[in-house]
This record gives sequence, structure tokens and C-alpha cells, in this order.
Amino acid sequence: MNQSEKPIIAVTLGDPAGVGPEITLKALKNEQVQQAVRPVVFGDAQVLRQAMDITGLRFNLQPLQRIDQAVFEPSTILVVESDMINAPVQMGAAQDLCGRAVFSYLANAVDWTMSGITQAMVSAPVSRESLRAGHIPYWDQTEILAKLTQTETPISLLMTGPLRILLYARPMPFRQVAEHLSVDRLVAALQRGDQGMRQLGVERPRLAVAALNPCGGEKGLLGDEEAALLAPAVAQACRLGLNVKGPAPADLVFCHALAGMYDAVLALYYDQGRIAAFCYDCQRTIELTLGLPFLHIAADYGTVLEDAGKNMADPVGMIECLLACSRYGQTAREFFKKNT
Amino acid sequence: MNQSEKPIIAVTLGDPAGVGPEITLKALKNEQVQQAVRPVVFGDAQVLRQAMDITGLRFNLQPLQRIDQAVFEPSTILVVESDMINAPVQMGAAQDLCGRAVFSYLANAVDWTMSGITQAMVSAPVSRESLRAGHIPYWDQTEILAKLTQTETPISLLMTGPLRILLYARPMPFRQVAEHLSVDRLVAALQRGDQGMRQLGVERPRLAVAALNPCGGEKGLLGDEEAALLAPAVAQACRLGLNVKGPAPADLVFCHALAGMYDAVLALYYDQGRIAAFCYDCQRTIELTLGLPFLHIAADYGTVLEDAGKNMADPVGMIECLLACSRYGQTAREFFKKNT
Repeated sequence: MNQSEKPIIAVTLGDPAGVGPEITLKALKNEQVQQAVRPVVFGDAQVLRQAMDITGLRFNLQPLQRIDQAVFEPSTILVVESDMINAPVQMGAAQDLCGRAVFSYLANAVDWTMSGITQAMVSAPVSRESLRAGHIPYWDQTEILAKLTQTETPISLLMTGPLRILLYARPMPFRQVAEHLSVDRLVAALQRGDQGMRQLGVERPRLAVAALNPCGGEKGLLGDEEAALLAPAVAQACRLGLNVKGPAPADLVFCHALAGMYDAVLALYYDQGRIAAFCYDCQRTIELTLGLPFLHIAADYGTVLEDAGKNMADPVGMIECLLACSRYGQTAREFFKKNT
Repeated sequence: MNQSEKPIIAVTLGDPAGVGPEITLKALKNEQVQQAVRPVVFGDAQVLRQAMDITGLRFNLQPLQRIDQAVFEPSTILVVESDMINAPVQMGAAQDLCGRAVFSYLANAVDWTMSGITQAMVSAPVSRESLRAGHIPYWDQTEILAKLTQTETPISLLMTGPLRILLYARPMPFRQVAEHLSVDRLVAALQRGDQGMRQLGVERPRLAVAALNPCGGEKGLLGDEEAALLAPAVAQACRLGLNVKGPAPADLVFCHALAGMYDAVLALYYDQGRIAAFCYDCQRTIELTLGLPFLHIAADYGTVLEDAGKNMADPVGMIECLLACSRYGQTAREFFKKNT
């Protein structure tokens, strides 16, 4: 690939006290990544220096103010500085400053990407605890991005191997899950999912809706949400021209997707989708945020702080994100051009 | 292995109109299986003949009344007949007669195994619809076995690859799951799980409890069952001498088990455990019923009737069951001797 054909990707470092900076460095040393994308890192040079000490990896750090100054070299990291962190951070601890730094990195990266300077965004993982410590009034990265881009009801798409899983809703208490289901919201989620899959280049996405109750409700013997809400939502989505099947028993629907029957499955609650993705391949699960005006992919690390500073976090998730940006970036850009 | 060292296994054919007879034949042709166990099939010769036509596999069928008549040969299937099915069955259809046949096969196999003639039991899959059509007043195989052996609160243990997943409760509507949690029942399930793992030869089982709410409840922000019920249950189980951790976020706990941190995970609801097992390896998931006075393993096929009669069902699940009987049979027998 020509240098100029590689997409320029905004990479946010995530929580400075988490695994993000380490896995970012490791991912940027990866040859496949170097051949696939041109990264611009949004963070602080101090954080990268600390991560270089932890990992033993070396890069030249080059502050970047404007893209026309950028010279992309594998041995150099171009950093759009937030000037939030100027001293060593205590690794593994949730802290005020780190929460605010995360927000700043994301805000800058969104600015660049909304302006079209960077063509997609990849985010290293964030600790929700740090966000709360920093009084950032958003639950997680997805909600921050939704706010910054004025996106209503963003939807997460988990990808791992051949699995594509749409998460119907943001994480909520288990007892609220059934109550939160509505035909309108289900149809909206399916539309967003359909759009998201097209954005990835799937022309006529085959979607399936997972059931809420075990055995798909077993014809009403184990719950009535399938007949009362899910089937009507599927029918309405089909009337709108979408290709949707289900509701299908949740223990089987992901296996059927793995076998090629569906392009994506709509999971009705957080763990339903995440257990499926993580048990298929925990380390390679990446998370797209659908509904944003650009392609955004996050590395989905369960333990952000626990493993930080130990040089043990596996960069494979971060590498997957960057390669996926290269794979889907062009299609996604055309999609956004057509649809805005 | 000497012929006499191989365990004698009671194999029930499952729903005559389902995939059970086909996969049983295929599994009994498997050389590893032939070297590992001596099978006695509980079913009907007519059903086996129909399955031979479907699969093209040939066996001599030898009716068996008493074990001292048994001559085990790879080319022969010894059949303890139920005399339920005497004419060809319509494959793939739930039907009265098949539901009653399933019950009869299980009842005979339980008789033989309770008497110690057969040393463990393997069951081909059953259709719940056929059971209902046949007015069998039990939900599934597990409930039938519990009734026949007077076992209270049997617990399913799903096994696939290195994953061991205990199911806290029988399938129930999603809305009842949180309500059904109680410290006493959780502790009882952990005790049964601990016992079950010892029965498989794990000396001091390391158990984990999956959380109910996403992110393990995120310190109460996403639900309080973790603090109110799950943590107290874990504490009480530990006081009773069990080795239990958790509650741990459900999307991660299975990955941690896969990484070797736990010997088994207690899943709080049906799909939580089954999605994990099936997404790890759908075809190789087998299900032990813990609490019974003998080792019982069932092939866990999601689609029992749909694929029947087409010679397409993969026997690998059934093969896994039979090999697991050989692997765990001796340990389990010693365990039952010590504990009864």
C-alpha cells in the first residue's frame, strides 16, 4: 500500500494509569499495523515515555499541532498533546487526573476526526472508575463520544472472528432489562445495526434477534416477551425492508451466526452479547460504536487497571482495532459521505 | 484397555424422531469409543433399524434381557427393548408416542444403572415438545431423571473444552431470575457443584460465582444483588470450607475460567451458562446432571428435531459423552461408593 493510501487514524491512549499506553506502543511496533495505517496519537508525551519504560519499547515522540507537519515514520509517534499529565502516573489506580485526561484525549481526537483530518478513531481502554473520580458525567467512552458528536442512542457492535453482535442497550441493572424492551426501540436498534453493517460493506445484512427468555420462551411457557415484543419488532423491521430473523433461542443464535446464517445478532442486554463474544475469543473482541458520524473502534479489555504497568497486557485487541480501521476505513468513509 | 476394564454404559436413544438414534449409531462406530466403553442401548430395535437406513451404517442388533447374556462386539448393538415403537416413525415431528418412548428408555436405563448393572448413563437428546405431546409431566430429561431417582434440585454441569459451568437453576422466565436468587439456594448449588467436581476427580475445586448485573453491578451502580445476595452466599460457602470466589463480572468470569483461574463457574441463569459454553464450542458441549446417584451425561444438541432424518447431525457431542464416561467413570464410581 502507498503511504498516502493508508488511512490516518486518531488513536486515543485511554486511561494513562491503565493498560492503554502499553498496548498502544506494542500495537504501533506491529509490522502489519505499520503497513496498514498512519497513526496519530492523542495523549501526553509523558504518558508515552512512562509506557516506554514499562515495555522497553523505544519511539521518537514528535508533538503534532497540524496535520501538514506530519511525517509518518514507524520509529516515530506523532502526538497531539493534551498537556494533562506532566509527571509519572501511579499505574493501576483510578484517579481524578486520569479521568479528565481520558476525556481530553477523546475530545481532541473527535475534533480532528469530525474535521476529516483523521479518518477514523481507535481508542485504548478507559476505566469507568477514573471517569467517576474525574467527575466526568458520562458512564464510559461510548457515552462520551455520543455527547461529543451529539449522537442519540449510539449502539455498540462487538466483533470477534466471524461474530458480529449488536448491543440493544447500554449496561443497566438486570431487573430493568425486560422493562426496557419496546418495539420502537428494537426497530431503531435493528435499523442502526443494518446501517452499521452496510457501513462495513455488507450489502444486505442478515440480522437475527436473540430471545430474552430461555429456549426462546418455549412458545410462551417460559415468558411472553418473544410473542409480545420481539416478534412484532422483527415483523415491523421486515416491513421496513430489513432482513431480520428471530427471535431465536439465545444459546443457539450466536452459534448459528458463527455457522454463517446471520451477519449480525442483536443481543438484548449487555452480558448476553458480551458473554458470547468473549467466550468465542476474549482477546480479539473489538467494539465499534454505531451511530457516530465516523468509524470508531475500541479495544475491549475487561481489566484496564488491574494489569497496568506490568508489561503483561496483550496488544492483540488493539492491533485488531487498527487493522479493522484499515479494512473498513474506505468503505466506511464512502458510506458516511453518501449518508450525510 | 482390557475388555472387562471398560465401563458398561447405559445409552438411551433419546427422541426416536430426533437426531439421537443417528448420532448414537455414528458414535458407536467411532473407534475411540469402541476402545473406551461397553455400551448397552436402551431403545427399540425398530428405531435403530430406521437410523441404520438413514445413516447407511450397519450393526447386528441383539436384544438383551440380562447382562450375563451380553457379548460385546463392535459390530453388534445390544438393545434393551422398550417395545414402544414397532413401525417407522415420522422423523422431525414431535409426537405422543416418541415422548412416551423417551420416558420408557430413561426409566429402564435408570433401573439398570441404579442396580449397578450399567455403571453410568449417556443420553441422546430429547425434544421437550414430544414430552409434552406424550403428556410426560416433566420439562426435560433432567427433571425425568430427578424424579426417577428421587433427587431434589439436580444441577446441570455443562462441560466444553476446559470450561465447567454449573447452572444455578432450571430454565425459567427472564423476569423471575433475580427473584429466584437466595443465599441458601446459592450455597446449596455451590455445595452440589463442589461435590460434582470432586466426583470428576478435582480434589479441591476452585469455584467462581458469575455476577447477575453487568460489570458485576459496578459497586451497586448497576444493581444490588451482588452485594445483597451473591457476596453473602460466597462468604457463607467459604465458611463451610468451599473454595469460592466472586461474584465476578459475567463477561469476564468465563474467560478467566478458560485461562485456568477456576475449575468451574456458577452461572445464575440458563442462558448465562449456555451462551458461554455454546460460544466456546457448540458441538462439544456435554451436560452432566449433578445430584443423581450415578454419573449421567447428555449430549447437548440445540436442534433435536429440525435436523433429524437427514444424516447431517454431527455425532461429536455423543462421542464426547461416551469418552467422558470412560474418563470419569471410575472416579465417579469410587465417589458414589464413598458417599452413599
